[in-house]
Amino acid sequence: MTGSSFGKIFKVTTWGESHGEALGCVVEGIPSNIKLDANYIQSFLDKRKPGQSKFTTQRKENDKVAILSGVFKGITTGTPISLIIENNDVKSKDYNDIKNKFRPGHADYTYQMKYGIRDFRGGGRASARETAMRVAAGAIAQKILGNKVKIRGALIQIGKEKINYDNWDWNQIKKNNFFCPDKSVLKKWEKYIKEVRRDGSSIGAMIEINVSGVPIGLGEPVFNKIDAMLAQGIMSIPAVKGFEIGSGLKSAELRGEENADEIISKNNKVSFKSNNAGGTLGGITSGQDLVIRFAVKPTSSILKKKSTINVEGKNTYITTKGRHDPCVGIRAVPIGEAMVAIVLADLLLIQKSLKN
Amino acid sequence: MTGSSFGKIFKVTTWGESHGEALGCVVEGIPSNIKLDANYIQSFLDKRKPGQSKFTTQRKENDKVAILSGVFKGITTGTPISLIIENNDVKSKDYNDIKNKFRPGHADYTYQMKYGIRDFRGGGRASARETAMRVAAGAIAQKILGNKVKIRGALIQIGKEKINYDNWDWNQIKKNNFFCPDKSVLKKWEKYIKEVRRDGSSIGAMIEINVSGVPIGLGEPVFNKIDAMLAQGIMSIPAVKGFEIGSGLKSAELRGEENADEIISKNNKVSFKSNNAGGTLGGITSGQDLVIRFAVKPTSSILKKKSTINVEGKNTYITTKGRHDPCVGIRAVPIGEAMVAIVLADLLLIQKSLKN
Amino acid sequence: MTGSSFGKIFKVTTWGESHGEALGCVVEGIPSNIKLDANYIQSFLDKRKPGQSKFTTQRKENDKVAILSGVFKGITTGTPISLIIENNDVKSKDYNDIKNKFRPGHADYTYQMKYGIRDFRGGGRASARETAMRVAAGAIAQKILGNKVKIRGALIQIGKEKINYDNWDWNQIKKNNFFCPDKSVLKKWEKYIKEVRRDGSSIGAMIEINVSGVPIGLGEPVFNKIDAMLAQGIMSIPAVKGFEIGSGLKSAELRGEENADEIISKNNKVSFKSNNAGGTLGGITSGQDLVIRFAVKPTSSILKKKSTINVEGKNTYITTKGRHDPCVGIRAVPIGEAMVAIVLADLLLIQKSLKN
Amino acid sequence: MTGSSFGKIFKVTTWGESHGEALGCVVEGIPSNIKLDANYIQSFLDKRKPGQSKFTTQRKENDKVAILSGVFKGITTGTPISLIIENNDVKSKDYNDIKNKFRPGHADYTYQMKYGIRDFRGGGRASARETAMRVAAGAIAQKILGNKVKIRGALIQIGKEKINYDNWDWNQIKKNNFFCPDKSVLKKWEKYIKEVRRDGSSIGAMIEINVSGVPIGLGEPVFNKIDAMLAQGIMSIPAVKGFEIGSGLKSAELRGEENADEIISKNNKVSFKSNNAGGTLGGITSGQDLVIRFAVKPTSSILKKKSTINVEGKNTYITTKGRHDPCVGIRAVPIGEAMVAIVLADLLLIQKSLKN
Repeated sequence: MTGSSFGKIFKVTTWGESHGEALGCVVEGIPSNIKLDANYIQSFLDKRKPGQSKFTTQRKENDKVAILSGVFKGITTGTPISLIIENNDVKSKDYNDIKNKFRPGHADYTYQMKYGIRDFRGGGRASARETAMRVAAGAIAQKILGNKVKIRGALIQIGKEKINYDNWDWNQIKKNNFFCPDKSVLKKWEKYIKEVRRDGSSIGAMIEINVSGVPIGLGEPVFNKIDAMLAQGIMSIPAVKGFEIGSGLKSAELRGEENADEIISKNNKVSFKSNNAGGTLGGITSGQDLVIRFAVKPTSSILKKKSTINVEGKNTYITTKGRHDPCVGIRAVPIGEAMVAIVLADLLLIQKSLKN
Repeated sequence: MTGSSFGKIFKVTTWGESHGEALGCVVEGIPSNIKLDANYIQSFLDKRKPGQSKFTTQRKENDKVAILSGVFKGITTGTPISLIIENNDVKSKDYNDIKNKFRPGHADYTYQMKYGIRDFRGGGRASARETAMRVAAGAIAQKILGNKVKIRGALIQIGKEKINYDNWDWNQIKKNNFFCPDKSVLKKWEKYIKEVRRDGSSIGAMIEINVSGVPIGLGEPVFNKIDAMLAQGIMSIPAVKGFEIGSGLKSAELRGEENADEIISKNNKVSFKSNNAGGTLGGITSGQDLVIRFAVKPTSSILKKKSTINVEGKNTYITTKGRHDPCVGIRAVPIGEAMVAIVLADLLLIQKSLKN
Repeated sequence: MTGSSFGKIFKVTTWGESHGEALGCVVEGIPSNIKLDANYIQSFLDKRKPGQSKFTTQRKENDKVAILSGVFKGITTGTPISLIIENNDVKSKDYNDIKNKFRPGHADYTYQMKYGIRDFRGGGRASARETAMRVAAGAIAQKILGNKVKIRGALIQIGKEKINYDNWDWNQIKKNNFFCPDKSVLKKWEKYIKEVRRDGSSIGAMIEINVSGVPIGLGEPVFNKIDAMLAQGIMSIPAVKGFEIGSGLKSAELRGEENADEIISKNNKVSFKSNNAGGTLGGITSGQDLVIRFAVKPTSSILKKKSTINVEGKNTYITTKGRHDPCVGIRAVPIGEAMVAIVLADLLLIQKSLKN
Repeated sequence: MTGSSFGKIFKVTTWGESHGEALGCVVEGIPSNIKLDANYIQSFLDKRKPGQSKFTTQRKENDKVAILSGVFKGITTGTPISLIIENNDVKSKDYNDIKNKFRPGHADYTYQMKYGIRDFRGGGRASARETAMRVAAGAIAQKILGNKVKIRGALIQIGKEKINYDNWDWNQIKKNNFFCPDKSVLKKWEKYIKEVRRDGSSIGAMIEINVSGVPIGLGEPVFNKIDAMLAQGIMSIPAVKGFEIGSGLKSAELRGEENADEIISKNNKVSFKSNNAGGTLGGITSGQDLVIRFAVKPTSSILKKKSTINVEGKNTYITTKGRHDPCVGIRAVPIGEAMVAIVLADLLLIQKSLKN
């Protein structure tokens, strides 16, 4: 209720500050008898890991995850799984600047006002470092969903540079540092990011996530529609400012006959002529692919000098030094995939509880 | 958990089918000693009520709300408030078409697949009629928030026709049938909607909701960020396909220096030079206005003939007759306001529980 | 969270004051395609109904339950079921006494202190009349459990008069006004209750509930053990002061070898040599009968004059007139059965969600 | 929902197996700006620690608790507190017996049936070792309650040997190894426990917990009455078989006039002539002391040979060797205190959220 838990049956509770001892999570509601080991979870974390290319932050975290409970001889026992990552690459640095001033775009000011205290080291609890545990939990969620449910994310826009949907190739995703499905924009993007970094600036991005093989019937009517749960999950990722499903915001422009996804039956298999709905009707999965997109704002930590106030409320200036991603949107791809997996796993188990 | 409840302390549980006996909700977590009567709630419902103008459905519902519990001599007692609206204008009509066929864009198919049964009369539980109770509960939520918190929605786009932000005038909202803040587009919109209706079609729309007077500190870090809770609330409204806060999807295009909302202090009052954040930092309200937008798809019930399948899985066609809104987005304005009020009331009470 | 909801998947939310317009509940998490009608639920309510014999209150309530949603053509649709009972037999009486004074043993004082206001008519929300909706919801729960799960309650003690376990006969339960399984004590009990009533007094009682046919595996380790959930459910019934399972409080006196329920296998069927555990090991059902007992205090409303204070805090006296049960424990039997059914239905659905 | 979390605002989520890597918990909903360090929590754990006297198990655990998050410079920040205890004294022993056979009275059989797998090392998740984290969380709960709320437990019965209430002296509690308030029974108890141990047997016990300084108004009507929440909390402690509040089970024997706690006012202070209610009216604290009692069954691990079945379902015998408490009830005293603290802290925060 105070925000660190997500999900109802498959429930993830995260804890930890960016530069504290460690971060971790407790995952509840995991069916027993599932094969699981730390290496499997690690492979998901490695996708999100910083310090992998010149396009992300140079902070090198080992981010080695350990399983402390809930798995016995490589098999889940049905009891809570506790995961932990120790903070190794915490540079013992001078925090004076962010200790005394509120960084614009960051949660410094609001945490201070809400709690009357804040762990200012590296952003504390508000740091995007928290998302490592979402990725770890998402790996477990994927196990519950099984191999048929395929969750795949892609970066489709950096700043004003968009991909060309006609060039979409899922195989490209793993071959470049951008999770970009369109080979033709790579050069442009590389150059673009380099410029942004050189300018000491940052840039926003757009991510698309596609889920195929979704069972029909997931999502609970009225308030827990799959659209709503995905929206909560995705909008809870740091720096995300917008979420859409299917035709999304563009739906505002459509006429009824353009928007309708007609239903047809071929060889006793139901299909749809289009997917404006993005895989959901009345908040319940229809068996079509789920298609969502979300926008990530540019990193707030930039070298440009900005006006702000200090903790005494006096006007001052701040320049955020340090190792930052010029485009946090890139690493948001595996984080988005993880949140989608978590949402789906929970809805799957809820559905299972009531299914005749 | 099965979707009919929303909120943690201030909790709304709705029930009821479109053409059933009645619909209602139970609202829990209401502080005692608040003045409340049915007339007050009714005034909110009347804003959403269909049959008010030629731009919305002609189904005339009395939608008279009654308070069955939790209020004693016009004062809340702290116990659950039960609200009920009896279904009066339920035309006893021929349901054969929607009984046997799945309407594209509607929840017919997914409900049937999920539950193996559906109350096909008027869409049953999936009908937007359900939102009446959100509006009623939102009225109570507004009482908890107090007068200082001002939640105001506006229709900013119908199809491709957008308002001009420079003409924004909140006083206009109540003077026209569109909740439109820009007087200059009214004529065009009227003509547009008439055409859409004449064509037997429908059209999407975009709504913006602004909240001023928001206390600093609402929203719970990580998963229950105010952004995330608002997103869940708004995306759970039928027909909503996209949600954004502050700069929203456009954030993807911005550079760090464009996006940063610099902080300044004037006469000991903190303010911001811009509001790209839309009133939230790290998922916690900053005291700036909350600014959200959401897109509503065109009504799925249109007169145009569409391909679909029947309950036996055979290909067929359907034409949805009946009294439908050509633009459901219009009536989504008070519904959106209500959901925002519900989210804020809940977060306010959560915050109160932990505040020193 | 504010107390009017119970259960996680199978969730019951009750509302209503004793002498208000009506009382009701919303039941969520009901699988679809279950046969259900008001008559079935009514048959459960009739067991609890007051005014049936000279041993319970003479207040005659019609207590006619109506189903307002969630059932279509006699079949559950998977959506919330709203139940309502209108208050008919509400004597418009003089409430001055209980309006101005706090009745000892009742919730008058604590409601006033907690909420600063109370609906004093007939005890308002604190009235045991609230339990009617538990019984109604319990009837639905029983449908989920199926016929194999048999929940049967019995009155085993009134004041100091206990039954003889050797005479236990389930068939007796329906034949007398006490839900008493021991025919031999009936005469004594009748005489006893008459005396208590004649004295203007009241008397406590003990109830035992037995559940046979319980599936193995219900109950969730650590905090949601079946023992714990049953305890919460039972102890939430008005006037209940103690709860035990299996050997219960007597366990304090036992030695390990007396307490151990040895396990044996016969014809590939597992059984136990005794049932000190009361059907639960580690908080999970073992397949043995669940055996619980709970104590109900004597009705607080008695004719004897008692010291109390008035709402201004001045010392005064009160005598509670009106139509009261001399032994509320009698009607607690069907209420206890209902709470057990609700707990089991919820744990069954939770178990189903995670079962391989 | 799957049992490892307790509480709504102040929420405790525990994880860990008896002989796994570690055990821990995440505590959410802690107000910021509270002084807290590991030593303070450790002092609570030390009360529960095994290996302290000849009357408890000789397993020597260091049980050193570490705080991994949520505390910054010795002050709570409002974010989740992660606590961990590494398992040091895990004897690498031969688990063959408990691996292949189900110990009567233990959760071996039900875990195997529920999950199809179990971590058999030392009881796994079902081990009472889990309660260490309850005690740790309880220490934090006590901080929220403040010094005025005094929670004190005592052992009042071992087997058939009860204390004499007339000799009750809280100062005695810390002076003996039994948390016993009656000096006069100590010798008898010592001798008794020695006999039980010598016999390779075990014995049950009864604990009483008294809470003074309770604010009026805690507890939520209907299902979350303070009685109900305490019952859930206490009955979830391993080996607890019965719970009562105030007059408890004895209420069944009382007449209305015996049971009524008359209210009087003296010098503008409200008090009660007796406390049969045990501090609660209508499920809400009245300001009187909370008085609860609970029974703990004898340790199931005894040296006596018992019938059981093996994992293949064949009949066999088992003798539980190893280091076991002859009377687990003794160490249940600090565990019970902790659960009461956790329940009260949560209800206090809930009450705060709605208090005018």
